[in-house]
Amino acid sequence: MSEILDLVGIFVFALSGALMGVRKRLDMVGMAVLAEMTALGGGLARDLILNVRPAAFQSVGYVLVPVAATVIVFFWHPHVARVMPAILVLDAAGLGLFCAVGTEKAMVYGLSPLHAALLGVTTAVGGGMIRDVLAGEIPTLLYDRQLYAVPAMLGSAVMAGLSWAGWHGWPATLAAAVLAFGLRLAAMRRNWRAPLARGLGD
Amino acid sequence: MSEILDLVGIFVFALSGALMGVRKRLDMVGMAVLAEMTALGGGLARDLILNVRPAAFQSVGYVLVPVAATVIVFFWHPHVARVMPAILVLDAAGLGLFCAVGTEKAMVYGLSPLHAALLGVTTAVGGGMIRDVLAGEIPTLLYDRQLYAVPAMLGSAVMAGLSWAGWHGWPATLAAAVLAFGLRLAAMRRNWRAPLARGLGD
Amino acid sequence: MSEILDLVGIFVFALSGALMGVRKRLDMVGMAVLAEMTALGGGLARDLILNVRPAAFQSVGYVLVPVAATVIVFFWHPHVARVMPAILVLDAAGLGLFCAVGTEKAMVYGLSPLHAALLGVTTAVGGGMIRDVLAGEIPTLLYDRQLYAVPAMLGSAVMAGLSWAGWHGWPATLAAAVLAFGLRLAAMRRNWRAPLARGLGD
Repeated sequence: MSEILDLVGIFVFALSGALMGVRKRLDMVGMAVLAEMTALGGGLARDLILNVRPAAFQSVGYVLVPVAATVIVFFWHPHVARVMPAILVLDAAGLGLFCAVGTEKAMVYGLSPLHAALLGVTTAVGGGMIRDVLAGEIPTLLYDRQLYAVPAMLGSAVMAGLSWAGWHGWPATLAAAVLAFGLRLAAMRRNWRAPLARGLGD
Repeated sequence: MSEILDLVGIFVFALSGALMGVRKRLDMVGMAVLAEMTALGGGLARDLILNVRPAAFQSVGYVLVPVAATVIVFFWHPHVARVMPAILVLDAAGLGLFCAVGTEKAMVYGLSPLHAALLGVTTAVGGGMIRDVLAGEIPTLLYDRQLYAVPAMLGSAVMAGLSWAGWHGWPATLAAAVLAFGLRLAAMRRNWRAPLARGLGD
Repeated sequence: MSEILDLVGIFVFALSGALMGVRKRLDMVGMAVLAEMTALGGGLARDLILNVRPAAFQSVGYVLVPVAATVIVFFWHPHVARVMPAILVLDAAGLGLFCAVGTEKAMVYGLSPLHAALLGVTTAVGGGMIRDVLAGEIPTLLYDRQLYAVPAMLGSAVMAGLSWAGWHGWPATLAAAVLAFGLRLAAMRRNWRAPLARGLGD
């Protein structure tokens, strides 16, 4: 079950990477590289920091699912772009799942709740940041103002708190993931925005 | 004492990250991400290469000090920009401290003096390079010509030499840090410049 | 023998990094940073993922050869640019060698053939991607269409297959390297191109 949810999150993140490749007129190799890095980059950063062999290099599915996403976008990208609203909902689900799973894994490896939550956020947003840098853009996360990292932060904080209080296993992970997912959806619907520095106008 | 100096260096580097965020009109999340990456990126790279758990993920202060720097820049950035000359002096101090501490740590973990010095430079300049790449710019370090990495190289080389000769502890670290600090100040005051490749004019 | 071939590959990759520095009018420090990162970045990424101390931080030659390449390009870059066709052939040789050696090392450390091949490709193309990102450009690999990563993929796949079948040692490495080298040369001569996503024209 956990593995299947992971693969869904990886698939959705890979779609966003491959679509960025189409937008930038990259060739098929470039699309595949962006798909892999977007999907696996956050978990890779997490595992390098935890000093363990990255999960992406132990699972065949983690590597092949982004290839499948690339093929789909390669042939049917106009259709994929048309269902973008649905993809954004799935992306929010991936965000929630990855921040909860990343935080949990960091707690298991002995990080403090503060650092585990930081690593959970890294897991959730790292791949998208790498995608944007490789595509020659400032990471959306840094300037977009519509809340993306903040829901992941709150989900990660709750996960770290639950785990610290001795609540482990899927109910806790699911609760934290659903919280981040819901906050991200609300941020999209109600256009909740992060502030600019004082005096920069609004 | 060592921890306090480290936190001062982290604070100054985080200020420069948050100020870059203001300059690029990033939102508060973007400012905080740049502050954290600028302050912690160099040490993170060093610890990943040394194959140890990063110091940033073991200290609460290392994570919270950049948050404080972000808040200060968020509310008072015109004042912060006005004291930029003072910040540049503090940045030079951070550069000196980080190259010395980074080199020392690498020696402790058994690297050769050459590699330890290389890792000391990485510690000192890595965060600033990550800041510039995330902000969509070529790292200042690569084209600015005013010497920045070279003082760190010389400080790191002296630190590696002292450490290799059996001089450990704070006197040696301080000597190397002060050397790099002084060279960086002199480079700023006298505008010492790195050469362009032959024929590219000057 | 193996060490000498490695150093030749590092030298050629470093030349391409230093030449990019000239093209972008970077100063000597910037040229040296690009040369080091281009030459060592791919192997560094590989070793971080394998969770071992990077080879670049254990060999003096690996660090000094890019310095030598920087000095050569600094003084004689018009001549170096003039022999670019020969450098591209050497770059193809470096590509072949690095993908084979990287895959072999990953197999030795217990990765599956699929993951070992992925890491072999990372070794071969990682440095060039870092070079382009630091120089403020989208990695050539992502949009250039002329096949570069694909020869490395095929060479890595063959290396992984041979290694998995129990064929180790230099004959196998050489066979895989020569295959990738030959495919890359053929891609250059015959302008074999990766496709764009359907409907993006061609």
